[in-house]
Amino acid sequence: MLTDEMVEQFQKAINSPTRMLKEKADLVSYSYDGSFGTYLPELVIQPMSTQEVVSIVKVANQYRVPLYPRGRGTSLSGGPLPVHGGVVLDFSQWNQKLEIDSDDTIAVVSPGVLTAEIDKAAKKYGLMYPPDPSSAHVSTIGGNLAENAGGPRGLKYGVTKDYVLGLEVVTPEGEVIKTGGRTIKNVTGYDLTKLIVGSEGTLGIITEATLQLVPRPQATGTMMVIFDDIVDAGRAISKVLTSGILPSKMEIMDQASIIAVEEYESVGLPTDVDAIILIELDGHPVAIADECKQVEQVCLMVGAREVQIAANDVAAAKLWKARKLVSPAIVRKKPTKISEDATIPRSKIPEMFKRLKQIKEKYNIDLVVFGHAGDGNLHPNIITDKRDKEEMKRVELAVAEIFETAIQLGGTLSGEHGIGTMKTPFMKMELGEAGLDMMKRMKSAWDPKNIMNPGKVFPENENQRLVLVDE
Amino acid sequence: MLTDEMVEQFQKAINSPTRMLKEKADLVSYSYDGSFGTYLPELVIQPMSTQEVVSIVKVANQYRVPLYPRGRGTSLSGGPLPVHGGVVLDFSQWNQKLEIDSDDTIAVVSPGVLTAEIDKAAKKYGLMYPPDPSSAHVSTIGGNLAENAGGPRGLKYGVTKDYVLGLEVVTPEGEVIKTGGRTIKNVTGYDLTKLIVGSEGTLGIITEATLQLVPRPQATGTMMVIFDDIVDAGRAISKVLTSGILPSKMEIMDQASIIAVEEYESVGLPTDVDAIILIELDGHPVAIADECKQVEQVCLMVGAREVQIAANDVAAAKLWKARKLVSPAIVRKKPTKISEDATIPRSKIPEMFKRLKQIKEKYNIDLVVFGHAGDGNLHPNIITDKRDKEEMKRVELAVAEIFETAIQLGGTLSGEHGIGTMKTPFMKMELGEAGLDMMKRMKSAWDPKNIMNPGKVFPENENQRLVLVDE
Repeated sequence: MLTDEMVEQFQKAINSPTRMLKEKADLVSYSYDGSFGTYLPELVIQPMSTQEVVSIVKVANQYRVPLYPRGRGTSLSGGPLPVHGGVVLDFSQWNQKLEIDSDDTIAVVSPGVLTAEIDKAAKKYGLMYPPDPSSAHVSTIGGNLAENAGGPRGLKYGVTKDYVLGLEVVTPEGEVIKTGGRTIKNVTGYDLTKLIVGSEGTLGIITEATLQLVPRPQATGTMMVIFDDIVDAGRAISKVLTSGILPSKMEIMDQASIIAVEEYESVGLPTDVDAIILIELDGHPVAIADECKQVEQVCLMVGAREVQIAANDVAAAKLWKARKLVSPAIVRKKPTKISEDATIPRSKIPEMFKRLKQIKEKYNIDLVVFGHAGDGNLHPNIITDKRDKEEMKRVELAVAEIFETAIQLGGTLSGEHGIGTMKTPFMKMELGEAGLDMMKRMKSAWDPKNIMNPGKVFPENENQRLVLVDE
Repeated sequence: MLTDEMVEQFQKAINSPTRMLKEKADLVSYSYDGSFGTYLPELVIQPMSTQEVVSIVKVANQYRVPLYPRGRGTSLSGGPLPVHGGVVLDFSQWNQKLEIDSDDTIAVVSPGVLTAEIDKAAKKYGLMYPPDPSSAHVSTIGGNLAENAGGPRGLKYGVTKDYVLGLEVVTPEGEVIKTGGRTIKNVTGYDLTKLIVGSEGTLGIITEATLQLVPRPQATGTMMVIFDDIVDAGRAISKVLTSGILPSKMEIMDQASIIAVEEYESVGLPTDVDAIILIELDGHPVAIADECKQVEQVCLMVGAREVQIAANDVAAAKLWKARKLVSPAIVRKKPTKISEDATIPRSKIPEMFKRLKQIKEKYNIDLVVFGHAGDGNLHPNIITDKRDKEEMKRVELAVAEIFETAIQLGGTLSGEHGIGTMKTPFMKMELGEAGLDMMKRMKSAWDPKNIMNPGKVFPENENQRLVLVDE
C-alpha cells in the first residue's frame, strides 16, 4: 500500500502535478490490457523525461514500490498489468521525439511515439521501418520494444529487435545507461540492447530508442493462392523459400477464418477451400512481376488449386483487407477472443494444423487459425465468452494443450505476444530448470528488489497454472 | 598452476587421451591468435561432445581453473588467449555436424565447422548463410558466434547474431541450456541467444548452433565508383541508400590501399584518386541491371569521377580480388599489421577519414584505410614492425586516439572484431560506469568463480592501458 509520504515523493519526481493520476475513475483505465485479468494500480504517473523516470525509479527503490511501464495497453499477454499493486508508468504522453536522420538511415524516438508514425516519417525519406504489428497504429514503440513485437513482415525483415541499434535505459536502481549506438555493427561488450528489447519491462525502462531504417522497396506485388488441402499450403511455403525468392509476407487463413470474413463482409474469398495463402513480394517492379510468376509455378506444382495475382494496388488492398478483417469477423460470434501466438518451425505447419483440429474437437471449442505462416508464427484464436465459466475451463485446457503441442513440435510458447502474466506457468516446460534459472539470475542481478514489472515472465510459484477466469 | 590431480580429472572428462595436449611444443601453438601478446596455456583439451564439455567445466569449477574456448585462433582482438593460465579448449576438431533442413531453412552445426562450409552446404538447397567475415574459410562458426563476426554483407544482411535462432550452451557451472530454437520469432523470456553471441566466451560454451538461412539471391552485379574527393564518396553512400536501393556490399578503399594493391599486383585500379567504392547488388537479374544504372546516376550526381559497371562475373571477380588483396598488399611494407574496426555512423565517414589523416601525421605512422563503408565499419590498418619499440609506442597512442575519435563521433570501439584483451582499457569510455557495471553484474551472476575466459571484455583494473609491445 502506498503511503501519503510515498505519493508525495512520487509527486516531487515529476514536473507537473497533472501527470499523476490518483482518482479511482482514472486508475480503472489502467487496470486491464488486451489480455485477461484486471488489476487496479494504486497510482498512475505519466513521465515525460529521462530525469523524471530516474527520480521515480529512485523513489520506488527506496520504498520497494512495484513499477509497471505501459504504452497504449494493447498487450495480448498482460505485460503492463499491475499485478502486485504499485505504480503504472504511462508513457503514451511522451511522444514528442521522432527524428529521422536519413544519412545514417536511423530514427531516434521517445517511448510514447506510435509505431506506425515512425514508418510514416521514414517514408518521406524513401526509407522504411519494417516491423508491422497489427496494432502499429495504436501501439507505442515503447511497448513494441518491451515485447519485441513482430508482424507479417517478420518473414523477410525480422522483428522489432532486428531494428534497434541503441537504447537509453533507466536501470531498476535509477541509473541511466546507453546501450548500442547509431551503428549497425557494434560488438563492444554484451548486447544489452537485444537483451532489453523483449524483456517485457522487467530489466529497466526504455526512455529513448535509436532504430535502423532500410531503403523503402520501390514496389509490392500481392497474390492469393488457394489450397484444397492445408498440407499442400505448408509445402508450398517451404518450396517458395527454397526457390530463391523471399516474399515480404506469407499469411495463411484456414477455412474457418475465410468463412468468418465472408460472413462479416463479403470480400469474394472462396469459402469451399481448406486454406488460402496471401503472399506479398516487394522490391524492384520488374523483379516482382517475374517472381510472382515463379511463385505461381511453384505453388501449382505442389498442388495449389488456383493462384490469383492482384492486377493492381486496389485488388491487392482488397486481399489484405480480408486478412485484416479476420479479427473483427471472428469476434462477432462471441465476445471473447483469445489470440495465441505459439510458433513452430515452418515445416511443422501441416502437423500443427492437424493437432489444432484435434484440440478443437477434444475440448469442443470454437477455434480459428490464421497468421504468419511464412515464419511459422500461427495465431490460433479461440472464440468464447468469458462469462461462460464452464466453457472457459475447457478453453484453459485447450490453450495449455496448444502450448504443449508447439513445444513438442520444436516451437515456442510465444512468437510475438510475449509471456506477460498469461504464459508464465509454461516457461519451465520450454526452457527447463537451468534455462529459467539463468534468466532469473539476470533479473536478480539487475533488479535485486524486484520492483520492475514484477509478476511477469517468471512463474511466481511451482504450481502456477493458466487461469483465464476471474475466480 | 594445474596439479597432477587436476590434469587427471580433466583427462577423465574426455573419452580419448589423444585429445589432451600437454607438451610444450603443442601448447605453444595455442599461445597466440591474430592479435598481440603470447600466453602459454597449461593444458589444451579438444572436446568433441556436449557431455565432455560439461565434465570439463565441472572439473574447472571445482578447482577454479580458467577455461578459454578457441576455434581456429583467427581472432584479431585476443579472444582465445589464455591470459591467466589454465586450459584452452580447442573446438576445431568438433566439426562433424552440419545439417541443412531446407524446409525450415536452417542449418544445425557443431562449433568447429568452418563458416564458409555452412554457406557452401546451404548453396546446394538454393539457400545462403549471409555472414561473410574475411576469415570465413579458416575460422570456425564457434569463434564467429563468440565474437559476433561481421563482414562486407553486413550492410544488407546484418551480422552473425542476426542468423542465430538457437544455441546449446554449457553454462560456467556445467549446466546444459538450450536458448531460442528453430523459429524466426521467439519471445519466450530473455533473449539469451543474442546475449551469448558476441559475449566472447565469457558467459558459457557454445556446443551447437541453429542458424537461419535465407533464399540465395539469383544474381549479383558489381560496380566500381571512382572519387576525386573522399567526402563525395561518403555522400554517395547515403544517397544510394535513400534512393530505395540496398546493395549487398559497399566497400571503400582509400588512395593508400589502392596504391598498395597496385604495387603488390597490378589489377588496373586508378591510383590518382582519393577513394573508390566497390558496390555489389544482389537479387533478381533484371532488377540488378536497372539498379546498377540508378546507382551510377546517383553517384555521378554527387560528384563521382567515373562509374565502371562490371560487364560479367570475371570482371566483377577482378574488382573483388583487388579488395581482398589490400591486407596481403599492405603487410609487404612492414611485417606487423594492426587491423582496427572502430565503427562510426555512416554520415561521419568523411569526418573520420579527415581525423585518421590527422592521426597518421601526428604520430608519423603508416596508416591505410579501407573497409565496410556502407555500414560505417572502417578498417584503419597500421603497418609497423613490432620489434621497433619506439615506433610501437607511437602506434599505441595512435590506436588509442582512433578509439577515442570513433566514440566522439558517436561510434563504437569495435564493429566486428570484439574487445578481447586489446580494447578493455577503453570500455568505460564508451559504456560509462553504470553501463559497464550492468554487464559485470551479468558476468558475476552467471560465472561467480570467473572461470570462463577471464581477462577478456572487462578491464581488470582502473589503470589498464593499451599495450602492444611485449615489455
